[in-house]
Amino acid sequence: MPQGRPEHVPDDGLTTRQRRRQPVLAVHTGAGKGKSTAAFGMALRAWSQGWPVAVFQFVKSPRWRVGEESALRALGAGPDGGPVTWHKMGEGWSWIQRPGAERDHAVEAAEGWAQIKRDLAAQSYRFYVLDEFTYPMKWGWVDVADVVATLAARPGSQHVVVTGRDAHPDLLAAADLVTEMTKVKHPMDAGRKGQAGIEW
Amino acid sequence: MPQGRPEHVPDDGLTTRQRRRQPVLAVHTGAGKGKSTAAFGMALRAWSQGWPVAVFQFVKSPRWRVGEESALRALGAGPDGGPVTWHKMGEGWSWIQRPGAERDHAVEAAEGWAQIKRDLAAQSYRFYVLDEFTYPMKWGWVDVADVVATLAARPGSQHVVVTGRDAHPDLLAAADLVTEMTKVKHPMDAGRKGQAGIEW
Repeated sequence: MPQGRPEHVPDDGLTTRQRRRQPVLAVHTGAGKGKSTAAFGMALRAWSQGWPVAVFQFVKSPRWRVGEESALRALGAGPDGGPVTWHKMGEGWSWIQRPGAERDHAVEAAEGWAQIKRDLAAQSYRFYVLDEFTYPMKWGWVDVADVVATLAARPGSQHVVVTGRDAHPDLLAAADLVTEMTKVKHPMDAGRKGQAGIEW
Repeated sequence: MPQGRPEHVPDDGLTTRQRRRQPVLAVHTGAGKGKSTAAFGMALRAWSQGWPVAVFQFVKSPRWRVGEESALRALGAGPDGGPVTWHKMGEGWSWIQRPGAERDHAVEAAEGWAQIKRDLAAQSYRFYVLDEFTYPMKWGWVDVADVVATLAARPGSQHVVVTGRDAHPDLLAAADLVTEMTKVKHPMDAGRKGQAGIEW
C-alpha cells in the first residue's frame, strides 16, 4: 500500500508544509471509465477539508452525473464541510439569464471558461472540477494556450481537476498529476445497458 | 461525449429493463491514481439511488480516505439517499470486539472477506466498495477462487467494485467492467508532498 514517499526531495527551498500547500492541476484522461467519477471522489476530500468546491460541467445530457450532483449538493448544503457550487452547461449556465435563446455549444463553452477565469482570479473556490473540459479545447471552442496560461498563473492555492478524453499535450505538460483511465473491459461491449446507480 | 450505446445487442432473451438491473462486478486496477476515488464516486450514484452502500476498507493507515469516509458517512446519515456503512480493517473490523488483541493482517483480511460473504448471502447492501481488496488476494490471505465463485453466485442485484493494483487475472476474467488507471505523471515524482484535500 502506498506510503506517500516522494521519489526525491526537491531543492526548491520550500518546507514540507509549504510543499503540502502547493496547488495541484490534475488531468484525468483516456478512454476508460472513472475520469469524472474520480474527480468527484477528489471533491469529497476537498469538501471534507471545508474548502469551497465548484463543478463546471461541460456536457450536454441532462442525465449525466445526477447521482454525483445530488450527493455533492447535499454535502454542500449540510452542516459540515465546504460549500458546493454546481454549474451545468447542459441547461445553460446558471449565471446567464437567456431563456429560450438558441443554443450554441461553442459560445456556451466559451462563456463557461470565461466564468472559470473570473472565479480563478477572484479565488472564489479552492477546488474546481472542470468536467469534460477537454472537449471544448479539442473542438477549438476554448483556446488551449489561454487555458494553460491562466491555470499556470492562478493565484493562491486553488486545485483544479480537468477531465475528458484526448487531453491536449500542452495541458498534460502543464499538469502536476495526470492519470490515464484505460478501458480493459466494459459491459456495453457485451451489449449490456447502462445502469441506474452505476452509469449515472 | 459518450452516448451509452451498446456495441451490439445480445441474444440473451432479456429486455432492456432486465439488462439494466444486472448486477455489475467492477475492478479498478493499475498503478495510477483514482482507483479508489472513482469507486467512491460510484458510491455517490448508488447513494443517490437510495441503495444501501457498504465500504470494506482493506488498508492499514488511519489517514487513508478520511475525506471520502466523512463525506459518505454524512450522506448516509442525511435525509436523502441510501444508508452508508463503513468498515475499516485498519482499526479492527467493527463487528469484532477484541480490544488490545495482537493484530494479524492475514487473519483480519480473512475476517473481512468472511463478513462480505455473509452480507452478500443476506443481500445486506446493494453497492459494495471492496477497497484495496486485491492485496489480500495477492498475498494469499484470501482465496481468489473463493472470491470469484462467491461473486459469481451472489444473489439479487448487488453491485461490487474491487480496487487495488495487481488484480488477479481470474478476478479480471470474472469482472464485467475493468478499468486500469495508469500513472502518466505524479507530483511525488517531482518530490512534492501529499496534500490535504488532494491525497486524503
